Amino acid sequence: MTVVIVLREAVTPAERWRLVERVGESAATVQVHSPTLLSAGGDAAAVQAAIGADPAVHSVAAIPADYPKAARASAPRGTTLRVGPLTVGGGEFAVIAGPCSVESRDQLLTTARAVHRAGAHALRGGMFKPRTSPYSFQGLGAEAVDLVVETKEVTGLPFVSEIVDVRDVEVMAECVDVLQIGARNMQNYALLREVGMTRIPVLLKRGLAATVDETLLAAEYLLDGGNDQVAICERGIRTFENSYRFTLDLAAVAVFRERTHLPIVVDPSHAAGQTGRVMPLALAAAAGGADGIIVESHCDPATAKCDGNQALPTGDLPELMRRLEYAVSAAGRRLVPHRPGLHRVAGAPRPVPQDAPVRIAS
Amino acid sequence: MTVVIVLREAVTPAERWRLVERVGESAATVQVHSPTLLSAGGDAAAVQAAIGADPAVHSVAAIPADYPKAARASAPRGTTLRVGPLTVGGGEFAVIAGPCSVESRDQLLTTARAVHRAGAHALRGGMFKPRTSPYSFQGLGAEAVDLVVETKEVTGLPFVSEIVDVRDVEVMAECVDVLQIGARNMQNYALLREVGMTRIPVLLKRGLAATVDETLLAAEYLLDGGNDQVAICERGIRTFENSYRFTLDLAAVAVFRERTHLPIVVDPSHAAGQTGRVMPLALAAAAGGADGIIVESHCDPATAKCDGNQALPTGDLPELMRRLEYAVSAAGRRLVPHRPGLHRVAGAPRPVPQDAPVRIAS
Amino acid sequence: MTVVIVLREAVTPAERWRLVERVGESAATVQVHSPTLLSAGGDAAAVQAAIGADPAVHSVAAIPADYPKAARASAPRGTTLRVGPLTVGGGEFAVIAGPCSVESRDQLLTTARAVHRAGAHALRGGMFKPRTSPYSFQGLGAEAVDLVVETKEVTGLPFVSEIVDVRDVEVMAECVDVLQIGARNMQNYALLREVGMTRIPVLLKRGLAATVDETLLAAEYLLDGGNDQVAICERGIRTFENSYRFTLDLAAVAVFRERTHLPIVVDPSHAAGQTGRVMPLALAAAAGGADGIIVESHCDPATAKCDGNQALPTGDLPELMRRLEYAVSAAGRRLVPHRPGLHRVAGAPRPVPQDAPVRIAS
Amino acid sequence: MTVVIVLREAVTPAERWRLVERVGESAATVQVHSPTLLSAGGDAAAVQAAIGADPAVHSVAAIPADYPKAARASAPRGTTLRVGPLTVGGGEFAVIAGPCSVESRDQLLTTARAVHRAGAHALRGGMFKPRTSPYSFQGLGAEAVDLVVETKEVTGLPFVSEIVDVRDVEVMAECVDVLQIGARNMQNYALLREVGMTRIPVLLKRGLAATVDETLLAAEYLLDGGNDQVAICERGIRTFENSYRFTLDLAAVAVFRERTHLPIVVDPSHAAGQTGRVMPLALAAAAGGADGIIVESHCDPATAKCDGNQALPTGDLPELMRRLEYAVSAAGRRLVPHRPGLHRVAGAPRPVPQDAPVRIAS
Repeated sequence: MTVVIVLREAVTPAERWRLVERVGESAATVQVHSPTLLSAGGDAAAVQAAIGADPAVHSVAAIPADYPKAARASAPRGTTLRVGPLTVGGGEFAVIAGPCSVESRDQLLTTARAVHRAGAHALRGGMFKPRTSPYSFQGLGAEAVDLVVETKEVTGLPFVSEIVDVRDVEVMAECVDVLQIGARNMQNYALLREVGMTRIPVLLKRGLAATVDETLLAAEYLLDGGNDQVAICERGIRTFENSYRFTLDLAAVAVFRERTHLPIVVDPSHAAGQTGRVMPLALAAAAGGADGIIVESHCDPATAKCDGNQALPTGDLPELMRRLEYAVSAAGRRLVPHRPGLHRVAGAPRPVPQDAPVRIAS
Repeated sequence: MTVVIVLREAVTPAERWRLVERVGESAATVQVHSPTLLSAGGDAAAVQAAIGADPAVHSVAAIPADYPKAARASAPRGTTLRVGPLTVGGGEFAVIAGPCSVESRDQLLTTARAVHRAGAHALRGGMFKPRTSPYSFQGLGAEAVDLVVETKEVTGLPFVSEIVDVRDVEVMAECVDVLQIGARNMQNYALLREVGMTRIPVLLKRGLAATVDETLLAAEYLLDGGNDQVAICERGIRTFENSYRFTLDLAAVAVFRERTHLPIVVDPSHAAGQTGRVMPLALAAAAGGADGIIVESHCDPATAKCDGNQALPTGDLPELMRRLEYAVSAAGRRLVPHRPGLHRVAGAPRPVPQDAPVRIAS
Repeated sequence: MTVVIVLREAVTPAERWRLVERVGESAATVQVHSPTLLSAGGDAAAVQAAIGADPAVHSVAAIPADYPKAARASAPRGTTLRVGPLTVGGGEFAVIAGPCSVESRDQLLTTARAVHRAGAHALRGGMFKPRTSPYSFQGLGAEAVDLVVETKEVTGLPFVSEIVDVRDVEVMAECVDVLQIGARNMQNYALLREVGMTRIPVLLKRGLAATVDETLLAAEYLLDGGNDQVAICERGIRTFENSYRFTLDLAAVAVFRERTHLPIVVDPSHAAGQTGRVMPLALAAAAGGADGIIVESHCDPATAKCDGNQALPTGDLPELMRRLEYAVSAAGRRLVPHRPGLHRVAGAPRPVPQDAPVRIAS
Repeated sequence: MTVVIVLREAVTPAERWRLVERVGESAATVQVHSPTLLSAGGDAAAVQAAIGADPAVHSVAAIPADYPKAARASAPRGTTLRVGPLTVGGGEFAVIAGPCSVESRDQLLTTARAVHRAGAHALRGGMFKPRTSPYSFQGLGAEAVDLVVETKEVTGLPFVSEIVDVRDVEVMAECVDVLQIGARNMQNYALLREVGMTRIPVLLKRGLAATVDETLLAAEYLLDGGNDQVAICERGIRTFENSYRFTLDLAAVAVFRERTHLPIVVDPSHAAGQTGRVMPLALAAAAGGADGIIVESHCDPATAKCDGNQALPTGDLPELMRRLEYAVSAAGRRLVPHRPGLHRVAGAPRPVPQDAPVRIAS
């Protein structure tokens, strides 16, 4: 257990220092993460007793692992990732769609226009692809930059893409608005440190055998580097079941919500492995309380260079958006399409307060 | 692979016999399951070729494992489990709620009345409890019969309860409308055979390490016995993640839908393990295409003899029903509360055809 | 946590009662399992403090779950299962071999003779087979009794066979010396209760998704019924890896050893799924500290009615026995073949004391 | 399936080219990996038929995934990793031991001397530690170089250490003889590519949720880069069981043996998580057919900066070596201690041929 101690905004350095000393007497370790955030390791009960009713303290909470900055206790009302028309968190539901990988000018532009028309909030697309086999298509790499820049001008959509090498930050920064850290690199700490030193928003995917707490510890690497625009992405874990690719873990969405203030996105595509299962899982994620989805969509899945059999044809995006409205209403969220044309579901449940999104008092 | 061969309704015994012979020449085994259902093992392509365009044949399909009767191919439009006001499948969404175990007259009646008032369609409650420890409360057993009979008279709700011993069929038949086979007994073949010989509807829970296909093979035991009122229940599988009890596998709902005609229910309670996570998972299940949920609910969770920390207080049931309406609309289903008082969501997507519930053409 | 309290042999009823009272003041529950074994639930530290240095108490230990009778604390030197030439536990290594199922007089006798000749200690063979598909061969059932009786007379080997139905105890008792409870029935509590009421030795297989503690809780059902001739069998758990059937969990052998006094057998056959992998896994189990193995072996695997591709040809048994001698020596155990002809490995490490078999002081 | 085609040594370029053409007519893709190694994707049966009895072809085999260079078919007799006194593969059993991390001159030297004295073949020690929490000790980094250089001079042992960042190759090359790629980086393809371009031997750890085939695909990245000194390391996978850290998968050792020519090492320490379980697992690995072990050992585990509770005290190493002799004999291998003082087990089974190490004809 780690104890997270949030100080009042008006705390003076002297008060802070006095508190650090007092906590230090009962804790094994004390860390100062920011002017208003401390954490302490050791005996949680002893630390909490030592703090007592100190007037400098706003709130105290024990968390299951060592991620004071990612812990909900440090920002109980939740945080939000924002880039242009994309808002992840804060009661709005975000839709990120696009192809597995950038393949050609034609493919990217056609898909992006359809994504834009459907009202989604951001475009995804792989430039550097981490592939299980060294002999598979590895993405266009830096050659994709110009295509992406052009596509962003045409659609106005921010662009989400995966980074796989610490040395690629600079080239990706030319066109990428949200850096994705993929499931296979979730515990590539060199990469987390490097991306944590930038100020580019990050979508951190849960590793395929990572627990909720390990995922938040990976997020802590990013936050500890100073990058506070971070969203978590549940994308399916590995289990014994092999009738699909991964087991989408929607219970984890609720647990992430309890433990972190970071917004939570769900990727229904990689788990599904098959087009027909993507929409049910996307709707389930929305009704289950996610802050958004990132979905693979392609203008012509049959010709896709990778993952074509799980890509939603762009022609299905309007139907997805229409159904999502009902699903997000069930969870007390709003879906505001990037372009007008879709309306709120009449009489939907009122949005639940952000600090306890879908939770019902027990 | 097993090949399922559905014959035309008007097939004559002579035609059927001729077909069996012809199939038998290319197949390793042939079985006659009913006047209009055959199956063949061996080389699927050879069998399909042998059948060719036989006029006696309505349809032919290869399925991943040996469950011809449970396979969707044998009843492409889906089947429905019906008991009184409870309809599972057929485009309607069913809500089964009630306590983990029957504890007392007062507890059962109070809970049942609240379940009824909220508009749920059936009452659940354990009489014989399978407990991990021999020293835990094992249920009231046969003593619960009178309480259940009385409660059913008061509320009119059918009663769902788990059977754990082949010798209990008779006593349970006195008051139970739907026999549940629990996750730990999913491969208790003696029990499956015994229950398959009754005509009492069955809710078959997926084992906590059972694949989709193994679950359908367990269902096949029931169907092979002649009991065709069967629903499958996804309740969470065991994975490495331990921040909750089980990993609710909503991707499996979509896969079950593809592979079987049996209706599919989701139990969000056992996976959640904590009250605050039950509603998000229930909503996710509904939006993800389930035909119903079975949820633990208690009039006073704090005093529950088992699983109190995952029981939804009955006071939260109306809110659950209200939110479910939106979630089931997303999936193209209807929630018709048992008693009036709740209304359809305005302008919801039209129900999708039963034979391809939430699937979008790919 | 449960606290196990072992009393001195000479304790009087009055002393015992006084202790129960004293423990009861600090514990939530107290149970008297035998004249010298109590257990208490609740706050372990408080209970241990309450007991202090009571002269009636031999030893006290907190265990991770509620299995006081299976806990090593209740019999620190370990227990042994004995039937004729079969000794499981106590420093000797036991080899149980035989076919997946009893198929015919010829098959059983031929296999049994080879098993006997190789020096194995018991014969296994299925009479009632739990099969995933209702259409697979389900065993000869009661028809196998006479064949088994004859085979036992010829070879003198005790017979191990699986029970799948509470109603089969009587018929199986006619010829079975060790009742096996299979992995799929490990949490079939009705069956555990029924077998616990007999005095027939039991081989309890770990469920394919059962934790070490859940397995010991299942054993507790047997012990609580009064049957104290119980051995645990590790046979592989279900994981994401599918290049073999199950993941043999040899780390669990060490953990079982720490937590229980019951002897531990390993089944290398069901995990391997392929003949060529059985011997390496059998040797690994022996060197890793198991008390014995149960291995599928068939006089003619190519014709076996089930699991032929994982059956060791009986012709390989002598080689297995020869290699096992080295492997068990590594673990400080002895392999004493049922019939003479094999010798001890010269200069092997001396047997380690039974209460800490392969453990090295840390 | 990928088809691996090994050509005769004496093949001419013209013959090779003719064969590539012929294969190309029936395969989807053909790749030339070396003068004597081709691979083809597509319909395996068609490719094999097309090749027929071509005199230029030495052997043809279909493998489960796309790793022609790692496949056993490409080097049926197995390959060996050699650095100084360390030989992994080729019938000898290798022991690599040392601390989790390099902490100080005193700790490293004391531990290394004990490792040397016990007869182990190489020293392990972390310089750059990948830690789950950003606030844990991250290793001495480059500061460890001088300590390692000195220690190697004193003991003559080659040094094995983990690389976590593509930019660290140069500094590590100053003192590291075998670069370890850790489980969390097994699918860090940028790192695999970088290390594949060096000629430093590599110990590639299986990812904690990686299948056997995915691990071999990761090895293929290394081999494809031209680095052919590669050993695979099984170190435990993640499963539902949490009474230890990871589930050591010894069945995978047998499967790796079938599928690859690369030598296979087992790490018993990270799975065990507790000192008392390390020796049983090390012995199990040896008897189960591994080519070596890498074990955490510390001169004073109580003061270790990381993983102290799973470190074997160096004082236990002689006992481990003594027991290992018996275990490796069971598997038909030899343990040749780096320094004299230990003797062969008398009368052990003769070593089995390298191309089918522990396999018994089926």
